[in-house]
Amino acid sequence: MKTYYDCISCFVRQSLDAVRQVTSEEAIHEELLRKVLSMAGAMDMSESPPAMARKIHRLIKQLTETPDPYEQQKKDFNDFALKLCPEMRKKIDESENPFETAVRIAIAGNIIDLGVKSSLSVSEVENAIENSLIAPLAKESVLDFQRAAASAASILYLGDNAGEIVFDRFLIEQIGPEKITFAVRGRPIINDATIEDAKATGLTELVKVIDNGDDAPGTILETCSEQFRRHFNNADLVISKGQGNYETLSDVDKDIIFILKAKCSVVARHFDCEIGTLVLHRNIENKKINCSKMKG
Amino acid sequence: MKTYYDCISCFVRQSLDAVRQVTSEEAIHEELLRKVLSMAGAMDMSESPPAMARKIHRLIKQLTETPDPYEQQKKDFNDFALKLCPEMRKKIDESENPFETAVRIAIAGNIIDLGVKSSLSVSEVENAIENSLIAPLAKESVLDFQRAAASAASILYLGDNAGEIVFDRFLIEQIGPEKITFAVRGRPIINDATIEDAKATGLTELVKVIDNGDDAPGTILETCSEQFRRHFNNADLVISKGQGNYETLSDVDKDIIFILKAKCSVVARHFDCEIGTLVLHRNIENKKINCSKMKG
Repeated sequence: MKTYYDCISCFVRQSLDAVRQVTSEEAIHEELLRKVLSMAGAMDMSESPPAMARKIHRLIKQLTETPDPYEQQKKDFNDFALKLCPEMRKKIDESENPFETAVRIAIAGNIIDLGVKSSLSVSEVENAIENSLIAPLAKESVLDFQRAAASAASILYLGDNAGEIVFDRFLIEQIGPEKITFAVRGRPIINDATIEDAKATGLTELVKVIDNGDDAPGTILETCSEQFRRHFNNADLVISKGQGNYETLSDVDKDIIFILKAKCSVVARHFDCEIGTLVLHRNIENKKINCSKMKG
Repeated sequence: MKTYYDCISCFVRQSLDAVRQVTSEEAIHEELLRKVLSMAGAMDMSESPPAMARKIHRLIKQLTETPDPYEQQKKDFNDFALKLCPEMRKKIDESENPFETAVRIAIAGNIIDLGVKSSLSVSEVENAIENSLIAPLAKESVLDFQRAAASAASILYLGDNAGEIVFDRFLIEQIGPEKITFAVRGRPIINDATIEDAKATGLTELVKVIDNGDDAPGTILETCSEQFRRHFNNADLVISKGQGNYETLSDVDKDIIFILKAKCSVVARHFDCEIGTLVLHRNIENKKINCSKMKG
């Protein structure tokens, strides 16, 4: 997905939100703002939004001399999500369709994204779970996903954020961890999950976890490691979580199932749905297989 | 009021909204966007937001070769407001406190601002009037305003937008048109009222109308005409409508009564109130005399 003109004001707003999280020094806020404006003014709009976000967050790390600005928030969300685990497992165990419930819980977790929104309350996450369990999600899309996962011998599951990866565990269990490789980011970027988060949440004990060698808040194949690209190319099916992975992989010719919450107007417009909708979209068909209009 | 860092993303978003109103040519959207980003990156943050808005809208006029991009919308809002006149007059005639009702209606009219929000429906204006009639507005502030207006021998009333100026008529009648000079912008800028709008809405028949000689969406005294500045300096009292006039005059040492609807988060924060609040603020006291918390 290219960068839309509407993304630009969002970059500017997000930059300011992000740098304010790290430091209260106004001189740094202003320096970042001016540099972001200058970068945005010269940017290649054919690049995906995460390419620009990567530049912005590298700048924030550099200006604030903080290699992992979201370290504490990632830990907090991992802990918080782990505490919710027994309750979520109960929902799946009691469900008539455990696969569908696992998909819904995985999408619910996608709300833990500090890229789009700079802060998030515990009650917002709890509401997201409740809503995701009842929001529209076409039965046939879920069934198609289930069949594709069952028939694939090897699956690459692209994780998104810390905390959120705890919510992916149930879907991984439903599909079968033995044929899944789970990928995290190679270096800290916003609150995206890295190998530390996979270890801290016990995901490394359930499934093989690799990192993609890069620090974009998405999957920019060209700048990922060769090892990661090999996994990507060899997988029968890719499961891709979140907006950042969608924005960077939407035009890639590969069997990818995108699951995400539409969290900004540009992505929502892309799927012709409302902000907040649960999206389950299979790339290979090159058409939306589910994007209900009701806010999830 | 200086430009806050938060204003910048708003400038970018508003620029895009505004240029899209004038042309669907994507190349022009992109050219404007890049130029605005470059200007914003180098801007003097001690200038008020309307100083930047003036630059942006001059650019839009130049790139689209359209000297008055909002011409039709201004006409439409003048006509629409004129149609509402009898109903508003009835509200004032039937009111227990006609001065207060006239103030409320004048503030209600301030919603007709295409600078903050690029489109506005008829029902939004109708709702704004209904809300303004019942929203909190401290009695003592209104009384102070009424006394200040009564004791001033000469008043300069700074208008804001086309359409909105129709809503100012009742307050002018309450105060007494003979001691009021009403000022409009010198050249087209967004949907701000110019002398054409004052003529079209019959305001020139009620009160002396001058233009300020400038094309900022506010009152930047340094770039206004000498004739306007003379009026400003000689007036016993200035009544200032809207955010743009507030943003450009908030630091001026003069007896000014600002009446406006707080329409963005920066101005709302400035008044420590919610977006949508009716604001009636007297400058000379250098403190807020009314800014209720309830959304108006």
